[in-house]
Amino acid sequence: MRWWGWGDPAHPAGLPAHALSFLADTVGVAERPRPPVALERVRLEPPRLSAASVDSLRDAAGRDGVRDDHLTRVEHAVGRGYPDLVRVRAGEPQGAPDAVVYPAGHEQLRAVLDLCGELHIAVVPFGGGTSVVGGVAPLRGEQQGVIALDLGRVGGLLSLDRASMTVRVGAGMRAAELERQLSGAGLTLGHFPQSFEYVSLGGCAATRSAGQASTGYGSIDKMVLGLRFAAPAGDIDLQAQPASAAGPGLRQLLVGSEGTLGVISELSLRVRTAPAERVYEGFLFEDFSSGVEVMRTLAQEHAAPDVARLSDRPETRMSLALAGAGGAKGLLGRAYVGLRGYGEGCLAIMGFEGERREAAFRRARALVHARAGGGLALGRSPGEAWRRSRYSAPYLRDELLTQGVMVETLETATQWSNLHRLHEGVGGAIAAALEQCGTPGLVMCHVSHLYESGASLYFTFIARMLEDDPIGQWRAVKERASRAIVEGGGTITHHHAVGVDHAAWMDREVGAEGVAAIAALKAELDPAGIMNPGKLLALSSRR
Amino acid sequence: MRWWGWGDPAHPAGLPAHALSFLADTVGVAERPRPPVALERVRLEPPRLSAASVDSLRDAAGRDGVRDDHLTRVEHAVGRGYPDLVRVRAGEPQGAPDAVVYPAGHEQLRAVLDLCGELHIAVVPFGGGTSVVGGVAPLRGEQQGVIALDLGRVGGLLSLDRASMTVRVGAGMRAAELERQLSGAGLTLGHFPQSFEYVSLGGCAATRSAGQASTGYGSIDKMVLGLRFAAPAGDIDLQAQPASAAGPGLRQLLVGSEGTLGVISELSLRVRTAPAERVYEGFLFEDFSSGVEVMRTLAQEHAAPDVARLSDRPETRMSLALAGAGGAKGLLGRAYVGLRGYGEGCLAIMGFEGERREAAFRRARALVHARAGGGLALGRSPGEAWRRSRYSAPYLRDELLTQGVMVETLETATQWSNLHRLHEGVGGAIAAALEQCGTPGLVMCHVSHLYESGASLYFTFIARMLEDDPIGQWRAVKERASRAIVEGGGTITHHHAVGVDHAAWMDREVGAEGVAAIAALKAELDPAGIMNPGKLLALSSRR
Repeated sequence: MRWWGWGDPAHPAGLPAHALSFLADTVGVAERPRPPVALERVRLEPPRLSAASVDSLRDAAGRDGVRDDHLTRVEHAVGRGYPDLVRVRAGEPQGAPDAVVYPAGHEQLRAVLDLCGELHIAVVPFGGGTSVVGGVAPLRGEQQGVIALDLGRVGGLLSLDRASMTVRVGAGMRAAELERQLSGAGLTLGHFPQSFEYVSLGGCAATRSAGQASTGYGSIDKMVLGLRFAAPAGDIDLQAQPASAAGPGLRQLLVGSEGTLGVISELSLRVRTAPAERVYEGFLFEDFSSGVEVMRTLAQEHAAPDVARLSDRPETRMSLALAGAGGAKGLLGRAYVGLRGYGEGCLAIMGFEGERREAAFRRARALVHARAGGGLALGRSPGEAWRRSRYSAPYLRDELLTQGVMVETLETATQWSNLHRLHEGVGGAIAAALEQCGTPGLVMCHVSHLYESGASLYFTFIARMLEDDPIGQWRAVKERASRAIVEGGGTITHHHAVGVDHAAWMDREVGAEGVAAIAALKAELDPAGIMNPGKLLALSSRR
Repeated sequence: MRWWGWGDPAHPAGLPAHALSFLADTVGVAERPRPPVALERVRLEPPRLSAASVDSLRDAAGRDGVRDDHLTRVEHAVGRGYPDLVRVRAGEPQGAPDAVVYPAGHEQLRAVLDLCGELHIAVVPFGGGTSVVGGVAPLRGEQQGVIALDLGRVGGLLSLDRASMTVRVGAGMRAAELERQLSGAGLTLGHFPQSFEYVSLGGCAATRSAGQASTGYGSIDKMVLGLRFAAPAGDIDLQAQPASAAGPGLRQLLVGSEGTLGVISELSLRVRTAPAERVYEGFLFEDFSSGVEVMRTLAQEHAAPDVARLSDRPETRMSLALAGAGGAKGLLGRAYVGLRGYGEGCLAIMGFEGERREAAFRRARALVHARAGGGLALGRSPGEAWRRSRYSAPYLRDELLTQGVMVETLETATQWSNLHRLHEGVGGAIAAALEQCGTPGLVMCHVSHLYESGASLYFTFIARMLEDDPIGQWRAVKERASRAIVEGGGTITHHHAVGVDHAAWMDREVGAEGVAAIAALKAELDPAGIMNPGKLLALSSRR
């Protein structure tokens, strides 16, 4: 992964001319492109660990298990949130780990935790490093040093129980690598977050990740059947079970603990038969309300697609604009001629996967509802266009940053009865905050991740970056959007997790006593407070 | 509910002659029937609360909110486990609450908890009182008194959000009452445990209950979207959300807390459209293995019935024997003529519910798999026979107790790959323990509650009751069966919960550090240790 942005260094750079002129016309771009600084200009403080401490870490994790070179530290200095990228591209990340430690398995990981407890070193578990909420920020808290605990060597497909459709993996295994291996066996996990190509499975579990196909496959917490967990106070080993009534749900407690209670070292995950059929197609709804009604019906009538997303009008318009004439033709399919140049209406993507007849039957039922709700079937070309580009938004973000355009996403979920109110409330809050910064923007949203009782709302917004205070600008918008979410009855996060960015809102989410309960757990499992300081539970400071 | 046993006082008593002679021939019955003692002969210690304490409780819960008459105390002295019934029928329950308190809502409940903290009174939350694992045992722990906190007045359908298919209920509401009210609106919760007619929704949530239709509707923990929770340290109010990534899963932590951390006062529950179609039918498999293979396939191929259960040969044989000729004809349907008198093979019940076409399509796919697995379709009559009697087993238990026959059930769940080993291991352990007691028995089992990765195993066993030490006999079998479960890779409970009976096994289930984590939560939420002492976390003593 590029140290300054997303993904494959071989990915082509640059924006097409029509996209650039759209941005210039709508939100404005910087006068000159703002590329990231050179790697050697990234400013890091020297590592604070003593040579003796580093030697001890090497004893625990092996000679090649500890690194503190400049590139490695930069790579572990930030996640992939907007403020992360703004800072690291400018050469000014907020600190960096003193060292990066790569244990080769649970026992080494255990030894590293024990050592860090003794030496007062904070431990920041690091999987794919793709957190967008500050989840891997190298904060020391009260500790004297801080390491990134890179799970890259705690990987591998440990076992496959085909009868139980369950795999056991090392938590550092990449989701993409597991899919590759499963695919050879005719299986799939079905977990495809936008960060799919880089994200680790342990990271997904620790942050309650939901993939793009979560409507069909469920979010990661539905897939975790068991786990091995290394807390500073000791190990917790919950074997794979289909279900249990043995007390409070500890699996669901450790899932979502974001490295603040300990580290997931192994996971037992439910897998499924790889789909024999895969139909992704597009629909156009006249307005957001009618599209939402269809999505709700599908979710409640057991006719839901595996992938379901419905863009509001601004998102539809923006998708078409950024795609250009060629792309819009793909996105709109057979409706292109009638709609080109307008982009009114709301684009929906539905993807049906599974056993051939089952998927076909579900799709047929969904089409009935979609038509009844006024949906215009656009055929497969929009669905395939979406599939091709499903992991590419983070690359686009890098290009926008280079053009001096702020782009950020945030998300929530709520009950169906509250969806429109929340959509308007949060969208309005973001727009107002951007306006107030003197940088009016475009605010767009889609519904995705359908449930019987509600759905997720995923907001994207772009605006001209305030060049002299991009972080202040971001913070102002984030603050106002978060307030609109919690005051509007949404959850502060549906699948990005809490990290640093949402920690201050946890008291609104679970109440003071809920926060106290989590704090009590932390005090038990991590008595010295070394695990991922500042995440999940609020520090006084904000990003 | 009868104070000495199950259910409706108007339920007819007595066993048919063929059933009695089957019991006499197989396990043996008592020489003379052993009816329960008269109510006035039930021995309770006098209440220990001072008049001042009772007055204070009346201040908190209202003049009519506190009772300590003999019948009320007897009714709250035991749950509905085998040792409970043996003891109360003999007039010797293990203690009783000093008083029973009936708060009329959350605020009164809160006031009662606050008062009990001050006065050192243990609080045993009491919903339907149907726990079979000692969950409502009136233990004082370290406290000076003990009350049963009866949720009977914290009920009612508080609101219905039709768009979100979500209801808000008082936690004391009975499942049956909610179904009645929902049915008028064309809706269903879909939660039908065997105790359905008496169980409270809060009790279901607190114990991670799974209904007979959980394969289709999910267990209660899948239905709980939000809850209001009164812990001694404070309230936790988690609003209804379809999903959230905001940290550790607190909903799933309070679900399953069994009254040891606090009391659920309100619940937001997902509901569904009442099924337009309902087809329950029977199948006969030649042996358990081939039936299990079919169940596994159905669960993994998205063709699972909503109700699925597969009896092993002993359970099939016993069902036919107890049903008698008339009943067996119903159970076996069109196969009756060929099989009567033998009862070899394994009976399966599959129930398909839902929207007409969807249920029909799923059923058609299931039938293909069932036939491919050698299943003989018996038609609807066995399914309807099962439906008619789905809540009647506890009445039968009362009759068996009267005849001096021990009857107990216990359950577990495991991955499919381990199902046969666990079936044999636990069944063998129960049989061996009964043998060792000098009371060889019949041990039977069914698979139910299907998941993609595994299923539940539900064991029933009968034997002649050891008249001079029925509790010792029970304890010996329970101990050996529980050991076989945890050593055989099963969960100690799939849906009966932990209570007193499984508390000593929690360290095997979640490890010492898992137990420590729950204990830390308890110390935070219930610092004075008043909540449901002795449940969930082990006391030194066993039932």
